[in-house]
Amino acid sequence: MNKSAIKNGELIKEEDAVVSITSREVQCNFSVYEALRVLGGKVVHLCDHEKRLKESAAMLNMKLPALNLKENIEKLIKKDNLKDVTMRILVIGGKNPQVFITYQDLLTYPDSYYEKGIGVTTYFGERFMPKCKTSNLLLSYLALEDAKSKGAFEALLVDRNNRVLEGTRSNFYMLKDNVIYTAGDEYVLSGVTRISVLKALEEMGVKVVFESPKLSEIESADTLFISSTSMAAMPVSTLNSKPIKCDFDFVKRVTTYVRAHELD
Amino acid sequence: MNKSAIKNGELIKEEDAVVSITSREVQCNFSVYEALRVLGGKVVHLCDHEKRLKESAAMLNMKLPALNLKENIEKLIKKDNLKDVTMRILVIGGKNPQVFITYQDLLTYPDSYYEKGIGVTTYFGERFMPKCKTSNLLLSYLALEDAKSKGAFEALLVDRNNRVLEGTRSNFYMLKDNVIYTAGDEYVLSGVTRISVLKALEEMGVKVVFESPKLSEIESADTLFISSTSMAAMPVSTLNSKPIKCDFDFVKRVTTYVRAHELD
Repeated sequence: MNKSAIKNGELIKEEDAVVSITSREVQCNFSVYEALRVLGGKVVHLCDHEKRLKESAAMLNMKLPALNLKENIEKLIKKDNLKDVTMRILVIGGKNPQVFITYQDLLTYPDSYYEKGIGVTTYFGERFMPKCKTSNLLLSYLALEDAKSKGAFEALLVDRNNRVLEGTRSNFYMLKDNVIYTAGDEYVLSGVTRISVLKALEEMGVKVVFESPKLSEIESADTLFISSTSMAAMPVSTLNSKPIKCDFDFVKRVTTYVRAHELD
Repeated sequence: MNKSAIKNGELIKEEDAVVSITSREVQCNFSVYEALRVLGGKVVHLCDHEKRLKESAAMLNMKLPALNLKENIEKLIKKDNLKDVTMRILVIGGKNPQVFITYQDLLTYPDSYYEKGIGVTTYFGERFMPKCKTSNLLLSYLALEDAKSKGAFEALLVDRNNRVLEGTRSNFYMLKDNVIYTAGDEYVLSGVTRISVLKALEEMGVKVVFESPKLSEIESADTLFISSTSMAAMPVSTLNSKPIKCDFDFVKRVTTYVRAHELD
C-alpha cells in the first residue's frame, strides 16, 4: 500500500514528505516533534503531546502555525484506515513553517523484554535544552548506536556530575529501599508516559524522590527501569553488560497501570 | 535559471535536493557538512575542506561513500556555468548515505563591516563535539537569532567556565598587548580560514597563545576579531551593544593575507 502523510493540513503521499536541504531551518534542526500512539484508530494522550509540542516550540521562540492536530490525524487515520500505529508530528520553524504527520507500524517490544528485562549502557553527555523535544538529536543517536553495538537496548545519559538523568528515548527510575529516585522535572524531558508512571507509583503507595541517582549508586539499586510512550515501563536487567537486581513484578505493575490508562 | 545540484554523484535539479523526514539519520542530524568558496570557477582550499569533512565523519563513526568531490564540484560548476559562489557539501550517514552538493550566491559582506567593524553578542552554550562539523546546529541557530534580534552580526559562545570559545559560524581572537589569544584546537572547530589567519599572524610577527579569553577579559581587549571562510577576518566594534576598542588596520592586514592565499 502506498502510505499517506499530512503536510500543512493536506494529505500527501508519504514519499512526498520531504524537506529541502537548502532550508536554513532544516540545516540547523530548528524543529520540534512528538511521537504518539494510535490504538484501534484512537490517538493516545493527544492533549499531553500537543501541550508538550507547544511548550517545546515556545522554548525556541518558534512561532507555530495552526496545527489542527486532531482533525489532521483523524484525516490520516481515515485515509489509510489505520488501527495501531506510531505517529510522528514534526514542525519545522522559520518564515514558512512546515507541519508533517507521518506514521509507522506500532512500535512494540517482545514480551521477553518485560519478563526478563533489557540491557542498558551508560554514556556521558548532556542534552541541549533537555526539557525541549527538538530534532537536535545527534547525542541521542550516537549514544544509542553505542548501546546497540554493545548489544544493549538503551543508553542512559550521564551528566558532568555523574548523575544518571534519562535514556536517549526514555525516562529513568531507580528503586532503592522502596523509594523511587528519578531526575527533577527541570533536568529531563517531561515524558508523557512519565506522568502516568508517577501516577502509578502514587497508586502503589511508593514514595518518589526527584533526585537523579549517581552513576555509582545505580549498580546497587533494587530495581532500575525506563519509560516511554512505546515502552510503557521496561525493566533493566543488565547495566553495561553486568547482570543487576530487578523486581520484574514491580515494573510490570507500573506498565499495567500505564497501559490501562492510555485511553482515559 | 533553474539551479542544479549534485546528489550521490548525479546532476539533479536543486529543487530535488530533498531528504525524507522519515529517515532516522535525517531526524537525528547524523550528518556532516562543509561550506566552501568558488572564485572564478575555482574551488578554494578543497583539500582542507575534504580533510575536515572526513575527520568529522570519522569522529561520528560515519562510513563515507566515495565522494569524488573535485570531479562532482567541477561537474556542477560546468553545468551551471558558475563563477563566484558559496558551495555546501552535505553528507548524511547511515546504511544508504547521501551526498549533496548545492550552492548559493557567494556570501560577501559590505566593505563597511571591515572598515567599521561588526557587533557581537555573547551567548552561554557549548557545542556538542566542537571539533566536528555536524548538522547538530540548534545552539548556533538560537545564538545567532538572539544576536540578530539585538542588531548584532554574530554571537560568541561562552562555556561553563566563562571562556569565550568561538562564534556560531566563526573562530574568535583577542589581541591584547600585541599577543593574540584564541581557543586551543581541541575546544573549537578547526576553521579552514583559521589556518590562514594563524599563518598571517606568524608572518606579521604576532605571538599567539592558545588560551580562550575569559568573558571578563574581552571588554578591555585591544582588538577582537572573528574569522570564517566567508568573512576572512572581521573586526568587532561593539560587544553586547557597547563600543569597544579595535585596531581595524591590524585586522585588515590579516584579511588581506587570507584573501591573497585563497588560490594557493
